[in-house]
Amino acid sequence: MLERIQKANDIKELNYDEMEVLAGEIREFLIEKISRTGGHLASNLGVVELTMAMHKVFTLPQDRIIWDVGHQAYTHKLLTGRKEGFDGLRKYGGMSGFPKRAESECDAFDTGHSSTSISAGLGYVQARELRGEDYNVVSVIGDGSLTGGMAYEALNNAAPLKANFIIVLNDNHMSISENVGGMSKYLAKLRTADVYTGLKKGVTYALHQIPVAGDRIIEQIRKTKSSIKQLVVPGMFFEDMGITYLGPVKGHDIRMLCRAFEEAKKVEGPVLLHVLTKKGKGYKPAEREPAKFHGTGPFHIATGEAKAGSGKDTYTDVFSKVICDIGRKDHEVAVITAAMADGTGLAEFKKHYPARFFDVGIAEAHGVTFAAGLAAGGMKPVFAVYSSFLQRGYDQIIHDVALQKLPVVFAIDRAGLVGSDGETHQGVFDLSYMGSVPNMTVMSPKNRWELADMLRFAVGFNGPVALRYPRGEAYDGFEEYRAPVVYGKSEIIYEEEDIAILVVGHMFEEAVKVRRALKETGYNCSLINARFVKPVDTKMLEELAKNHKLFVTVEENVRCGGFGERVQGYVSEKRLPVSVLSLALPDDYIEHGSVEVLRREVLLDAASMTKQIIARYTML
Amino acid sequence: MLERIQKANDIKELNYDEMEVLAGEIREFLIEKISRTGGHLASNLGVVELTMAMHKVFTLPQDRIIWDVGHQAYTHKLLTGRKEGFDGLRKYGGMSGFPKRAESECDAFDTGHSSTSISAGLGYVQARELRGEDYNVVSVIGDGSLTGGMAYEALNNAAPLKANFIIVLNDNHMSISENVGGMSKYLAKLRTADVYTGLKKGVTYALHQIPVAGDRIIEQIRKTKSSIKQLVVPGMFFEDMGITYLGPVKGHDIRMLCRAFEEAKKVEGPVLLHVLTKKGKGYKPAEREPAKFHGTGPFHIATGEAKAGSGKDTYTDVFSKVICDIGRKDHEVAVITAAMADGTGLAEFKKHYPARFFDVGIAEAHGVTFAAGLAAGGMKPVFAVYSSFLQRGYDQIIHDVALQKLPVVFAIDRAGLVGSDGETHQGVFDLSYMGSVPNMTVMSPKNRWELADMLRFAVGFNGPVALRYPRGEAYDGFEEYRAPVVYGKSEIIYEEEDIAILVVGHMFEEAVKVRRALKETGYNCSLINARFVKPVDTKMLEELAKNHKLFVTVEENVRCGGFGERVQGYVSEKRLPVSVLSLALPDDYIEHGSVEVLRREVLLDAASMTKQIIARYTML
Repeated sequence: MLERIQKANDIKELNYDEMEVLAGEIREFLIEKISRTGGHLASNLGVVELTMAMHKVFTLPQDRIIWDVGHQAYTHKLLTGRKEGFDGLRKYGGMSGFPKRAESECDAFDTGHSSTSISAGLGYVQARELRGEDYNVVSVIGDGSLTGGMAYEALNNAAPLKANFIIVLNDNHMSISENVGGMSKYLAKLRTADVYTGLKKGVTYALHQIPVAGDRIIEQIRKTKSSIKQLVVPGMFFEDMGITYLGPVKGHDIRMLCRAFEEAKKVEGPVLLHVLTKKGKGYKPAEREPAKFHGTGPFHIATGEAKAGSGKDTYTDVFSKVICDIGRKDHEVAVITAAMADGTGLAEFKKHYPARFFDVGIAEAHGVTFAAGLAAGGMKPVFAVYSSFLQRGYDQIIHDVALQKLPVVFAIDRAGLVGSDGETHQGVFDLSYMGSVPNMTVMSPKNRWELADMLRFAVGFNGPVALRYPRGEAYDGFEEYRAPVVYGKSEIIYEEEDIAILVVGHMFEEAVKVRRALKETGYNCSLINARFVKPVDTKMLEELAKNHKLFVTVEENVRCGGFGERVQGYVSEKRLPVSVLSLALPDDYIEHGSVEVLRREVLLDAASMTKQIIARYTML
Repeated sequence: MLERIQKANDIKELNYDEMEVLAGEIREFLIEKISRTGGHLASNLGVVELTMAMHKVFTLPQDRIIWDVGHQAYTHKLLTGRKEGFDGLRKYGGMSGFPKRAESECDAFDTGHSSTSISAGLGYVQARELRGEDYNVVSVIGDGSLTGGMAYEALNNAAPLKANFIIVLNDNHMSISENVGGMSKYLAKLRTADVYTGLKKGVTYALHQIPVAGDRIIEQIRKTKSSIKQLVVPGMFFEDMGITYLGPVKGHDIRMLCRAFEEAKKVEGPVLLHVLTKKGKGYKPAEREPAKFHGTGPFHIATGEAKAGSGKDTYTDVFSKVICDIGRKDHEVAVITAAMADGTGLAEFKKHYPARFFDVGIAEAHGVTFAAGLAAGGMKPVFAVYSSFLQRGYDQIIHDVALQKLPVVFAIDRAGLVGSDGETHQGVFDLSYMGSVPNMTVMSPKNRWELADMLRFAVGFNGPVALRYPRGEAYDGFEEYRAPVVYGKSEIIYEEEDIAILVVGHMFEEAVKVRRALKETGYNCSLINARFVKPVDTKMLEELAKNHKLFVTVEENVRCGGFGERVQGYVSEKRLPVSVLSLALPDDYIEHGSVEVLRREVLLDAASMTKQIIARYTML
């Protein structure tokens, strides 16, 4: 059946029975492909029928489907002629794991972060109305994404709308892991309501008293709801805001889904269609452990076991162990995650010290200010969060933490290039945005031992600290270089003259190779582990300037506002007699691919850096 | 009566009748003081009784009161021994217009931006529980602030709490102006419920069937609610999330308020106390025009009329006129504000082209992505927003606008120093955070004419543009310097040699004075209007390097990540034979005070800059 789907809208030729066969084939296809390439599995298995129903009812690319976060768009890609792309999924030059306008005209909006789809969809709707155009706009948002405040801002804003706008609430009880909070509780109540009619058991009799004429059931329901609002209607919060609530609908029943979408199209104004799906549906290991199969590497299909990794600790593993040890001794330490207990390594802390573990939902802005409140109340909060997600808390970092000099530690994971997730997940701005914040201390460790030392330093430091470290295996070289962490002080690894490499954090491993290559070519070269990006160790710069002609800064962050510019600024201000070469990421977005390949592309691999340094030094 | 209030908790000595007299005196005091100094009036008049009741029931500083936004904390300041501070309100070195931990131990949390109070309060609550302490935490949030998604993230997170946490919903139907959206509609329904009992008219009979024992009415109500949930209970959304809803309570009835707070203290878990207040209460001109009296300059008490200003156009006025003209001719232009139609000058556009005007509420993150959606749908959106508020949309700017290269114009008002609002409102980070965003164009005009030219350029430019301009009077000098705006090109105003001043935007006016002073002292000096901060006009830098020894960059933005560092970076990369002096704001927060005074403090007034330039030039 999958053979018959070559391009968008081909699915319209299938009948319901054929579609059910197709659903099975799609699941098989996805499991097979992802077991080889890795990728997002559980979320995609959960929306096979939902996606198919949308493609049956709507016509692409005229109609716009906007996928919140977007990691669940694999079936959508399959149904829009991108089957061949799955062999190169998330590889450099290959198909993205997220919707991309540049990849297909059927992708209406690029996504990657959570809770944006209703905002973007509302923008499309208003544009459509103003331009007098005629198409459907469908935003598909998970109940996890609904914990993000932006989604609520958008719902609030969409409510008064007079024009049709379909919001699909893809409710699987989870974001990456179990959802938290009051909205989750509210939705749980809705789930117990009668399927489709959206009326609670016990009051459905009211509906039966009203004659239902053929297919126009929705209109009847709406009238009925209105007349029995003295009784409890699930979804009344949405309804009271002005959003028609339909559901809940069984999310793996294609017939029901198609019917629901047909009805939703007819509603004037915004309509929320509540669809119940199961994450990992159809693949037992993923149904059992949906969090594990959210984003996965290659795995054995029969067992669900991961294909062998290196077995070495990641930086996240190191953080996980050390924060548990710190928490064991210091009862004032509390940890915060934004729906990422597993990804950030806080799950272990949660196990041991549940009272001091806080999952705030996909709500980084709130998470930052909540941390500030904890600190103001006398605790020592550590907010473990991915670099690109923390961008959502920039204002709160400035005002609620740094302005008040509150001792909040930001353990910034996934800093630098992250690889296959691509543009929206690269953690390449944090040195810039954290660097601009007054009172902030910004650090980064050269290896696993230093991450431990810095984390202990940060927790004991009486002020805000950002500690950034990357995705992937923790470098375990240079264990013997473990000078005590002193505020604002860099660490000299090799002291020579002529060229001084000043390297930030995990790029140390690459810088060691660069120095070796330079030595082999006959150059003298010092190697300095910057340790602190803010404040810059200016005393060190002054010292180095005495017997070096060239400073080379190395960082995995965009050049604009990064460590290099800070050093260049200082050298310029003080008119130090030295040239500065800043090796950093370009002022551009960096797509998906392995970190190794990406580094070569942006000239931050050892060989490219060595070449650039020699070229510059030769010019002096 | 005001005489008797010398310090925190003195109000506890007063009885209700005395408190009512005091309320009148406080209003008189505030009107009198603010009529001289300017400040926030309407919001403060609205919470006189609410504040007094809290100070009667709670004990400061043990109990924590957290004021959302914080511009309504004047009565709180009066009741905590800061009466004398009102003469120096919002003046340099004087009392802040916002709560400040550094100012009083009765100020539990610094605020300034919207929707943070529940997050911070929840942090305090969790810290209290973990540390085994015993105090009350009260977060006071307006219904306007409730349109911000962060507040919802925090409510969602607070809901499962087992410990007491009082959230006061100060409901005046407004943020600065009329509120928008579905939540507003929802609250409107609650307002019609019976006062205090929180039950809708028509179902209160259910309550009467249950015996009410003395003062324990709340418990009875809760039981009743639970038993009649088959009927409609206002606040059920909150209740369904797990938050006890109490109210609505009349917000100018001190007795009722005190009683409500006493009851709220007894609730286990989070409780939302819905209080109805009137913005501007007790001063007719402010009741009539609360938006005008939200933040006001000095005014005549008798009439409410503003004391004479200069009558000259502000940059906002210029923007307002030009965007209307653009919108008249180009029907694809739509404008967006985050609850700031008056402040940003969009009210006029709204009047003429209401269909293309969008107020998204205090929801900058959503506003950015909504703009991206409009652009993806074929419109040309212009989001007019204050610099410091746009910090809330940093992540959305990176992903939803710039990554997709969508033509969204950010008209960034209040860029640079804003004066009396202080730290949280200074627009001093935008060049840094916008500068780090790939695909973003960043511009700033030297005078009113250039703002018009740049705005037209930006709307016609097929990509994201940030156009920043300051608060206050628009500079109208140099009208004749009106070279066409060309992408990435600076403008030469005076061309000499030796020293080249490169100035960003409105600092031009000050730079002209600097150049004059330098000329008078015998120096040669070129003056370049940078126009584009991103991309930097590097060709111009190369040209200037040929016959200048010193570049001086001037910007009203923090040094870190600003224009100066970008120029220093380029000069360093290209090893141009020139020294660069970067004149910018320090890496620090800048308090309230007049812009003139603040500039002197940070050495960005003409005299200080001239001195620094001469000192540097002499060293070359």
